[in-house]
Amino acid sequence: MARWEPNARERLERAALALFTEHGYDATTVAEIADRAGLSKSTFFRHYADKREVLFGGQNALADRFSEAIRATAPSATIGACLAAALESAAPAFTSARHGLALQRRAIIAANSELQERELLKRAGLCSAVADALRARGADDTTARLAAELGILAFGTAFARWATPENQQPYAEIAHTALRDLQACAAALGAEPDIRA
Amino acid sequence: MARWEPNARERLERAALALFTEHGYDATTVAEIADRAGLSKSTFFRHYADKREVLFGGQNALADRFSEAIRATAPSATIGACLAAALESAAPAFTSARHGLALQRRAIIAANSELQERELLKRAGLCSAVADALRARGADDTTARLAAELGILAFGTAFARWATPENQQPYAEIAHTALRDLQACAAALGAEPDIRA
Repeated sequence: MARWEPNARERLERAALALFTEHGYDATTVAEIADRAGLSKSTFFRHYADKREVLFGGQNALADRFSEAIRATAPSATIGACLAAALESAAPAFTSARHGLALQRRAIIAANSELQERELLKRAGLCSAVADALRARGADDTTARLAAELGILAFGTAFARWATPENQQPYAEIAHTALRDLQACAAALGAEPDIRA
Repeated sequence: MARWEPNARERLERAALALFTEHGYDATTVAEIADRAGLSKSTFFRHYADKREVLFGGQNALADRFSEAIRATAPSATIGACLAAALESAAPAFTSARHGLALQRRAIIAANSELQERELLKRAGLCSAVADALRARGADDTTARLAAELGILAFGTAFARWATPENQQPYAEIAHTALRDLQACAAALGAEPDIRA
């Protein structure tokens, strides 16, 4: 029987990000990650399906959080309030303790075009999850799609601002500002006298 | 020296879409496409880098059209007018003569998850092209990103409506309506009293 390893998932994540940073993503093997973490390959595979999941597993969890947060809003909540709730639900993933890991992850993805594609696809998945959750509470299709794009744009902007080396501001505050700025932009775009002027 | 073949590009496209429909995308080879079109493999490769480009080459051309249309608008044009110009610039690709090809292409992509991913990535590329073109004419970053998402959402909606078997309406009209609907949605989202209500 495998021993229970305390914090195995996080130790594996830290080891993987360190190795991806040092040797590149493609050159790093699961065996090396497990070895660096002082754990076995079978322990790795109990936590992650493959090395790519170390980088992207969090985004599946995020789609669930976003959907759940929107489902939990009051029936009277505005679409904007739903988006705010979704963005706030991500805060536990973006604590100051995880700031360094997020910086590493960003640099690893920026260095690899295949990972960048994966990141774009995950973004599209988050967007679909938000649109589905909004439709489920009665939003029409056009509103659900546009609001989801706006929300995910706010999320992406907030995450990018939070995950800079010099940032000290908490993610939730940054997300709130990003959402408000985009809401103001939407108002301005919507207020144009005629879109075919 | 290779002979000049009239309409070779379109003959190859029609042959490829027919074969992808009949046998599936993965099972179809470039040799079979060339053969069905009555052309040589080397003629195929003068027109397309590979069989995937038959499906996605048009989207690279579209990104250029969108950028060029936005660049060509008057300096006083609103963001909405820029988006309308971009969407209208795609009309020559969506004529009634190409309606059947578009239906085939949609069904081929819907049947293959790898092609669906490629389509999502191409969508992201179109969005970046529009955002870049808007920034180049002075839009701030937040506005450029949101307007690009709105424009590409309008484009995607318009294309999906146009490429249905029963559709008789011209693409440009459908695109105009889709853009106006999204503008109205943006106004409604922007007008919410407080996004964190």
